[in-house]
Amino acid sequence: MELFIERGFEQTTVAEIAKRAGLTERTFFRYFADKREVLFAGAGTLQEFFVSTVASAPDSAAPIDAVAAALEAAGALLQERHEYARQRQAVIAAHAELQERELIKLASLASALAGALRRRGVTEPAASLAAEAGIAVFRIAFERWINETGQADLPQLIRDSLDQLKTVTAGKLGRELPVRVPGRLRVPGRRRPGRESRRRRWPPRPAAAA
Amino acid sequence: MELFIERGFEQTTVAEIAKRAGLTERTFFRYFADKREVLFAGAGTLQEFFVSTVASAPDSAAPIDAVAAALEAAGALLQERHEYARQRQAVIAAHAELQERELIKLASLASALAGALRRRGVTEPAASLAAEAGIAVFRIAFERWINETGQADLPQLIRDSLDQLKTVTAGKLGRELPVRVPGRLRVPGRRRPGRESRRRRWPPRPAAAA
Repeated sequence: MELFIERGFEQTTVAEIAKRAGLTERTFFRYFADKREVLFAGAGTLQEFFVSTVASAPDSAAPIDAVAAALEAAGALLQERHEYARQRQAVIAAHAELQERELIKLASLASALAGALRRRGVTEPAASLAAEAGIAVFRIAFERWINETGQADLPQLIRDSLDQLKTVTAGKLGRELPVRVPGRLRVPGRRRPGRESRRRRWPPRPAAAA
Repeated sequence: MELFIERGFEQTTVAEIAKRAGLTERTFFRYFADKREVLFAGAGTLQEFFVSTVASAPDSAAPIDAVAAALEAAGALLQERHEYARQRQAVIAAHAELQERELIKLASLASALAGALRRRGVTEPAASLAAEAGIAVFRIAFERWINETGQADLPQLIRDSLDQLKTVTAGKLGRELPVRVPGRLRVPGRRRPGRESRRRRWPPRPAAAA
């Protein structure tokens, strides 16, 4: 990470990384396929952590609660490494190929989480939906944590993010003030469209869209 | 698509694609950066469709309803092209580099959807969460649609998938039968842990996990 920050990701060679770490290149390649993988070495640990926390949830726990526990526990683990996480994210943000690798990592995490839920007896598509929603919550909380100055609390941001998701999927507005309250601004004397006719215009029906 | 299916994606050249389509290679490259992009040509249209449907939702629509309308309308559009979608998915499933490109496409769609919600006055992180959850719903419904034999109804699968997400985030079990009802199997005479002490063991608290 020191070298990636000092010299840039592209300019850093495996030889330099091995030297800085006091290893031979051969030893480096025993652990990592290439220099890119150094940045994703934690993915396996994170995945095992997610899976084992979901597996250890009581049978009575709802899928979303098992997922929430996994995310929060992983958040507590990452909380200790704020500076490292921040530096890592800066390197990734500067390189399209690393962002792609990050997307693959997140997709693998979601897939592992869904598998852990299925092993608890959660049926599809609920297992995949809970897992994908969980990873979205995690990613969005993680980004806020990285961008916040000072000592932001990642597990708390994860809880807040999950609460927001629950509010949003329950059909709440998610904005401070409604832009317009329907019907309040209508012109007096003008016919107000009935519920049915408004419905017919929006949302667009399949026939109109095709 | 014919060539990708007949000869395989890797074996197909741009020269062959241009010839089959009755175009010069030069004309091909005016539209596509490479042969991979042929498979992602629809992404821009899909994105514009998402964004314009969200923008045209009434002010009173909750973010999740604006997203749902966009997903359903896009589903109705894709519904007409089941065979093409199926063939495309088979080609993508066989190549890691195409799966990565698909992940990038989905991330861009989510980001465009979140932007469209913010322009409606939806605040962050609600906008990103609604968008990410929406794309997860879409992807999972799409996969079911691709894998189902016969005339599956994609807009209906999208509605079902969104309903499932709502059920899951509301904390429902998402499985046919609970594996064990808490407290029912307790050994008589043995002290049953109180609510507080059970809470302390699970979910794992940040301090224990770090």
